[in-house]
Amino acid sequence: MTDRSPLRDLSAPPFATRHIGPSDAEQARMLQAVGYASVADLVAVAVPGMIRAEGPLRLPPAASETEAIAELRALAGRNRLLTSMIGLGYHDTITPAVIRRNLLENPGWYTAYTPYQPEISQGRLEALLNFQTVIADLTGLDVAGASLLDEATAAAEAMTLARRAGRAKSPVFVVDADALPQTKAVLATRAEPLGIELAEADLSEGLPGGELFGVLVQYPGASGRLKDFRALAEEAHARGALVVAAADLLALTLVESPGFLGADIAVGSSQRFGVPLGFGGPHAAYMSVREGLQRQMPGRLVGVSQDADGRAAYRLALQTREQHIRREKATSNICTAQVLLAVIAGTYAVYHGPEGLRRIAQRVHRHAAVLAAGLRGAGVEVVHEAFFDTVLARVPGRAGEVVAAARARGINLRHVDADHVGVACDETTTGGHLAAVWESFGLEGVVLEDVDTSASDALPGELLRSTEYLAHPVFRAHRSETALLRYLRRLQDKDIALDRSMIPLGSCTMKLNATTEMEPITWPELAGLHPYAPAEQAEGYLALIADLERWLAEVTGYDAVSLQPNAGSQGEFAGLLAIRAYHRANGDLERDVCLIPSSAHGTNAASAVMAGMRVVVVACDDQGNVDLADLDAKIGKHRDRLAAIMVTYPSTHGVYEETITAICARVHEAGGQVYVDGANLNALVGLAKPGAFGADVSHLNLHKTFCIPHGGGGPGVGPVAVRAHLAAYLPGHPLRDGGPVGPVSAAPYGSAGILPISWAYVRMMGGEGLTAATEQAILSANYLARRLAPHYPVLYTGREGLVAHECIVDLRQITKETGVTVDDVAKRLIDYGFHAPTMSFPVAGTLMIEPTESEDLAELDRFVDAMIAIRGEIAKVASGAYDRADNPLRNAPHTADCLVADDWQHPYTRTEAAYPVPALREGKYWSPVRRIDQAYGDRNLVCSCPPLEAYED
Amino acid sequence: MTDRSPLRDLSAPPFATRHIGPSDAEQARMLQAVGYASVADLVAVAVPGMIRAEGPLRLPPAASETEAIAELRALAGRNRLLTSMIGLGYHDTITPAVIRRNLLENPGWYTAYTPYQPEISQGRLEALLNFQTVIADLTGLDVAGASLLDEATAAAEAMTLARRAGRAKSPVFVVDADALPQTKAVLATRAEPLGIELAEADLSEGLPGGELFGVLVQYPGASGRLKDFRALAEEAHARGALVVAAADLLALTLVESPGFLGADIAVGSSQRFGVPLGFGGPHAAYMSVREGLQRQMPGRLVGVSQDADGRAAYRLALQTREQHIRREKATSNICTAQVLLAVIAGTYAVYHGPEGLRRIAQRVHRHAAVLAAGLRGAGVEVVHEAFFDTVLARVPGRAGEVVAAARARGINLRHVDADHVGVACDETTTGGHLAAVWESFGLEGVVLEDVDTSASDALPGELLRSTEYLAHPVFRAHRSETALLRYLRRLQDKDIALDRSMIPLGSCTMKLNATTEMEPITWPELAGLHPYAPAEQAEGYLALIADLERWLAEVTGYDAVSLQPNAGSQGEFAGLLAIRAYHRANGDLERDVCLIPSSAHGTNAASAVMAGMRVVVVACDDQGNVDLADLDAKIGKHRDRLAAIMVTYPSTHGVYEETITAICARVHEAGGQVYVDGANLNALVGLAKPGAFGADVSHLNLHKTFCIPHGGGGPGVGPVAVRAHLAAYLPGHPLRDGGPVGPVSAAPYGSAGILPISWAYVRMMGGEGLTAATEQAILSANYLARRLAPHYPVLYTGREGLVAHECIVDLRQITKETGVTVDDVAKRLIDYGFHAPTMSFPVAGTLMIEPTESEDLAELDRFVDAMIAIRGEIAKVASGAYDRADNPLRNAPHTADCLVADDWQHPYTRTEAAYPVPALREGKYWSPVRRIDQAYGDRNLVCSCPPLEAYED
Repeated sequence: MTDRSPLRDLSAPPFATRHIGPSDAEQARMLQAVGYASVADLVAVAVPGMIRAEGPLRLPPAASETEAIAELRALAGRNRLLTSMIGLGYHDTITPAVIRRNLLENPGWYTAYTPYQPEISQGRLEALLNFQTVIADLTGLDVAGASLLDEATAAAEAMTLARRAGRAKSPVFVVDADALPQTKAVLATRAEPLGIELAEADLSEGLPGGELFGVLVQYPGASGRLKDFRALAEEAHARGALVVAAADLLALTLVESPGFLGADIAVGSSQRFGVPLGFGGPHAAYMSVREGLQRQMPGRLVGVSQDADGRAAYRLALQTREQHIRREKATSNICTAQVLLAVIAGTYAVYHGPEGLRRIAQRVHRHAAVLAAGLRGAGVEVVHEAFFDTVLARVPGRAGEVVAAARARGINLRHVDADHVGVACDETTTGGHLAAVWESFGLEGVVLEDVDTSASDALPGELLRSTEYLAHPVFRAHRSETALLRYLRRLQDKDIALDRSMIPLGSCTMKLNATTEMEPITWPELAGLHPYAPAEQAEGYLALIADLERWLAEVTGYDAVSLQPNAGSQGEFAGLLAIRAYHRANGDLERDVCLIPSSAHGTNAASAVMAGMRVVVVACDDQGNVDLADLDAKIGKHRDRLAAIMVTYPSTHGVYEETITAICARVHEAGGQVYVDGANLNALVGLAKPGAFGADVSHLNLHKTFCIPHGGGGPGVGPVAVRAHLAAYLPGHPLRDGGPVGPVSAAPYGSAGILPISWAYVRMMGGEGLTAATEQAILSANYLARRLAPHYPVLYTGREGLVAHECIVDLRQITKETGVTVDDVAKRLIDYGFHAPTMSFPVAGTLMIEPTESEDLAELDRFVDAMIAIRGEIAKVASGAYDRADNPLRNAPHTADCLVADDWQHPYTRTEAAYPVPALREGKYWSPVRRIDQAYGDRNLVCSCPPLEAYED
Repeated sequence: MTDRSPLRDLSAPPFATRHIGPSDAEQARMLQAVGYASVADLVAVAVPGMIRAEGPLRLPPAASETEAIAELRALAGRNRLLTSMIGLGYHDTITPAVIRRNLLENPGWYTAYTPYQPEISQGRLEALLNFQTVIADLTGLDVAGASLLDEATAAAEAMTLARRAGRAKSPVFVVDADALPQTKAVLATRAEPLGIELAEADLSEGLPGGELFGVLVQYPGASGRLKDFRALAEEAHARGALVVAAADLLALTLVESPGFLGADIAVGSSQRFGVPLGFGGPHAAYMSVREGLQRQMPGRLVGVSQDADGRAAYRLALQTREQHIRREKATSNICTAQVLLAVIAGTYAVYHGPEGLRRIAQRVHRHAAVLAAGLRGAGVEVVHEAFFDTVLARVPGRAGEVVAAARARGINLRHVDADHVGVACDETTTGGHLAAVWESFGLEGVVLEDVDTSASDALPGELLRSTEYLAHPVFRAHRSETALLRYLRRLQDKDIALDRSMIPLGSCTMKLNATTEMEPITWPELAGLHPYAPAEQAEGYLALIADLERWLAEVTGYDAVSLQPNAGSQGEFAGLLAIRAYHRANGDLERDVCLIPSSAHGTNAASAVMAGMRVVVVACDDQGNVDLADLDAKIGKHRDRLAAIMVTYPSTHGVYEETITAICARVHEAGGQVYVDGANLNALVGLAKPGAFGADVSHLNLHKTFCIPHGGGGPGVGPVAVRAHLAAYLPGHPLRDGGPVGPVSAAPYGSAGILPISWAYVRMMGGEGLTAATEQAILSANYLARRLAPHYPVLYTGREGLVAHECIVDLRQITKETGVTVDDVAKRLIDYGFHAPTMSFPVAGTLMIEPTESEDLAELDRFVDAMIAIRGEIAKVASGAYDRADNPLRNAPHTADCLVADDWQHPYTRTEAAYPVPALREGKYWSPVRRIDQAYGDRNLVCSCPPLEAYED
């Protein structure tokens, strides 16, 4: 018999060994290359001692994947899933299983990055163009964007768009009294810092008197009322105001479009097109505008352009509008949107087609009409004659009783007030639900079939839709499950996502999105909850949210966290609002200057402007660090008006600035608050805590550091974390709790539906695992920097030449000498099977590379080998061995089409173009298009699906 | 207000509209092309009136996808999931989430067909080679196959292999008394018809006296006992017998291999390598053999060969052994195996690597050792000193009580007999489980840590494994989740499955495997149940099984159905056993002749031989129909010995033979039974019922007609359906119920874990939908035949030139005139993005095409267009425009590699090779290898992962 090896020595390797790419042996080889004996040694040098956290993270010990799933199942089991007939912008829907499995649950879709590299993003860009076509068609407007964060923030974006685009000088924006309550609340949050005055009015009475720059009409209203707003729009236009319609997409399949009725801008949610409720999100909001306003639109916009071979190709259009280029002149801070959810909604429309959508809408409406008729027939007053899906019943003094009776029958209704109950029908409503609702109202003997036989529909004749929609062939071609499955596969195959290769994007932290983290989000108990379900039905969610807030506070060293912001940009805005409210509460009404280093991400400035602050730029030195002398000068100049400084740490240059504590001290001394942008938190977790080394507030990006996948450009989650003195100023929500600061997102807990991902990540890593991940991220970045340095200059470094979690390689000299640009290298990397690093941020002419901890050594080396091979190609250009204008770099990416062409006219060989390194012969990624002409598409803007002829040669 | 459109007119389109490819409009166009006014008209002509069923199918009305899922959730909820410590060859395991999502739940893997076309199957072939390497390494034998159906049938295959390969003439096969009970039972079922005598013996006492041709050792035994069988093997060899070891793969990571100990053949289950229990299956069994026996192995075998460019490539090796070629000379009837599950098991080993597997095994063993020590320490007798994972405790008279106490604590133990309890540890076992087990034995105060400190391990020193395993780099390279995810994606991308394009395989019915059908199978309540869990814990499964048996009986017109056979081959065998048992029960001991038409699938003959029958071939006429005159002659000659006739209906030629009722009548008149092979049932469902038009027994293929995906070559399910007089002779099972006929599969309900797929299909289609599917399948086949007929002769047709659900196009004249072969066309179809139709079956030199109902018109047309374009290429060969030896057909498939090569030496252009039709420029599938040299691989047989150097150019 053998000796014992006790159980404790035989435990399964922790999840961290699966999350972190390099094995121990690989890590040792990397340390040797970088020149340190241990990770501890490396980190001791790389990370300034003054910011180092004391002691390990106090988090629960790491759970195994099996244990974490069991705990999540238990949490999910504490939610109680009732049928939701609450409405208010959130409706249950049927996610077609083929879409759930092959899109929502498919890493080929959810691990993709934002399509800034359009050549490797043609699949999701096509899917987004489908979405835009759905929106433009259904809203009857000319140009639709590729999604916004939620209906309420979309309405706020529409408000500011109306203000800057319109002729009127008035600060007044009129809001429909029948608008969704969360929309009203977010409008209020967003209006106040900008000096916009909101005027709520019952628009069924017409437009109120007085000046205004815009008006928002809810169509149909939150109460269900459906009203023609043509006259109102005409009057608004006559008075110089723009008209925003917040419209229900499903209703628009039956009633005339906002554009037809005179709206200039339409916004709304596409949630009910197949996207799970998820306790409030993530869902894709939409915005569309009439011709002339498109250059003012916030968010991303997919357009059609052409590639180097003149073939139609998609890419993001009008990028120059965006905050990362316009900075403090930006009109919106939105970056990450809701691409994955927009893709689902667009695909839902592809799957159902116009007749299918219309049929669903008719069924929804018919259920509502029959419900109303049944109520009326039994003597219950139904308030509105015309409605789409929501019935408002007047039951004086009995609303609470009716709602309780329905709940006892497994149905949540909307408790409007003591006298009114709202009942919203949706795609999942059945006759059984109607019967239960009638019973809840105390009605007996209402026979569905009888009511159905006699009830009229409740859509006003003058609103019945006559205009066509979704006539493009894509909405007819993929109706069988087999056809849709293959369409999704074809689109997916065009793209590079994390399931194919490393995406070394600086500042974006494209780490593993583990399956165990992802699986729970489509469980019915988590996916099916309405955000306004009573708290006692959401116990599991609330416990999970409380855990995550507590854990994130521990990781960041702050005292309070709000998970409401559903993107980093919204977290920034919420953080700045907290600072603003704090100063105002202290009577410091004049503090409105926000210092921002010149190296900052453009969103910082845009957020500051939105929060009513004035941006003052602080210079950086030639090492990329904040110039302390300039900082002092700016503080001196604005001392009495200083509200805050916004810095990113480690800096956007990927360096741990040694001066961070000094910066914090100086700003504090002048009465300002310190905002540390958490974009680069992956370099800090477990090693340093912003809330402990001097900052007052940060936002985090759960879609970077905490494993929520990028989804091709969203969803994200941008929690805001603050020290105790700011805790009272975190965002509130009218339907959950109040507070001095209003909500920044439509739903109380933002994108609650994806929080289980980050919960599972923290739960399975534990403090030790999280710290090890950070250490590996730092080691991997330094390994890359060390291996690349002989070939490309590494731009910024800290102590002993070390970088933080990313590094910047400088191509400016190369470009000067050879004409080979950052773009050429980025596109050539596609031929090598890689997504490019971040281009020209934070410094033009450079590439910023962030490997993350999840890439193993083989993949890191494959990337380095590609970069070195490309450097060799550049050398050939320099030496004249390659033509300066006609070489593999300039012509990259090469499609199979162009490589197989019978006439090959280039002075380099096909093999050099296709297989510059032999490993590519094992499963090469083929770019579906050649390099895309960005300018052509902006000159010839097309943002819906082009006719098929456009694709002909 | 609008008029009403009542709810009943607004119901959602049924699931059938998603399952069936063509829309109504497309169907109308197809009918026009075929020349019929309606589907009813077509069917009335195509399907002989004499077999038409009366009235519609009596099935529950079609449920929607949402309703079906809700019902399945309710059924799943009626299972009670306890911790299983029953053992007996089924052990709980942790399926890594990354494997579950990206392999088991991924249509790119599960919809693939058997890799008969190796060029488009390189991904799964590589995965299978990994599996074979795992098996060969762990069992210490030279050659492993690509999976068998389950351990018990694998043992039976090993028994017959030993008989034909060995020197001994004895009919005796000695079986270890400590073998798994299901293995003993299946051996008995399989031995009897072949005249093999089983002798059970306690092998711990050595080999019994007397002659024998083989011996089966269970290693470790069902009781847990672990014993060195070297001496036994030596003695067996000395006595001319072969040694079969049924071994536990996980144990083999710690103890010496069967090959090392002297076994000639190893068999077992790979279930515990990450494959869910699934109430008994599907799981992949394995077999490996020592050098010299490989040409005798049953089932499929992946081997390495090379392609036209001399590059290493995989394909099925030694195909000439198989039953579809050897027919009545076949030694096994196995076709479909368990590829998907073998791929999972192999990938589990890739993910864990040798150290990881060893660590898991050590932990499992340590739990068992500590459990035993705790029992012993508290005075409970543990029977065996040496064991791996299973502890046999002797508790005189108390076994029932202990088992009940454990059940009350949520754990199922094995109730061996009144005095013995078995406890099996597995990957999921924790200290908590041990504590609960001790409590169940009535022990108090046993402290895990204390026992762990003092307990020794229980592996015999002389068995400790010294030989290496899994040294190939593939078992080291993919340990992080990211790395494994990408490996799976790369493999998947090499293959064509249904998620890319139509797979028009005649006789294989590659229809939609809908996501809603697939989703439930990985729910824990369905995936986690042990096959021997008490019936009251399996209520949901038993209800689902009862539903499905009833529904299949209705569909086929039979009186009783058994779902136990886990492949069509096993269903055939079970059906023939029923016939055999029936005759014997009637005293007709001499009835052993089985008539089989010359057009039959080879499996029929092989099954008949296995069932102890003599095959007599009946001729077919030149229309491919059974030659009635020859039938009469054969009946006349064998009247007294006539046992059965086996016919396929519609025939393997894809024709509804008009004579089927006459055939049935004549065979019955002579005292024989009629076996109708259900392979082509997709042409009958809802229109005709074999059980009603004259047959006595059929097997069905749920993986054809009833939507279980092919999984790349399994799992399948092959229920056997019989008329009332045969019902008593359906397979029984020793652990569920007895009966005159023993089990044909290891588990009582075979591959129960995938039955929800077929349940959901029938539930969502309803009788009307199933019938509509059949009608569309017939229409689609006739549409293809009509469109192809001007270009290729269609070989067999029935009335008015109609085919059934598939058609055969004849290339023999083309081959004669041009040298272009069936192979050339099949491989050229790969360049067009298609999997080839069935080649040279049932007639050499032809292609058999079955479109199924799930392909929409666009895909059917795309296929026809490809076939027509290929016909054009053939014409160029005929005219001399293409060289006879160097043309796009002969050189197909073309890889990107060969097309991009700098030296293009062919007399046709690259464009002609790559893009013969323009649509291919939109997302072309690139074959990863060129045409594979089958003979080379058989001459140089390599069946495990080759060293990396083999891939170098």
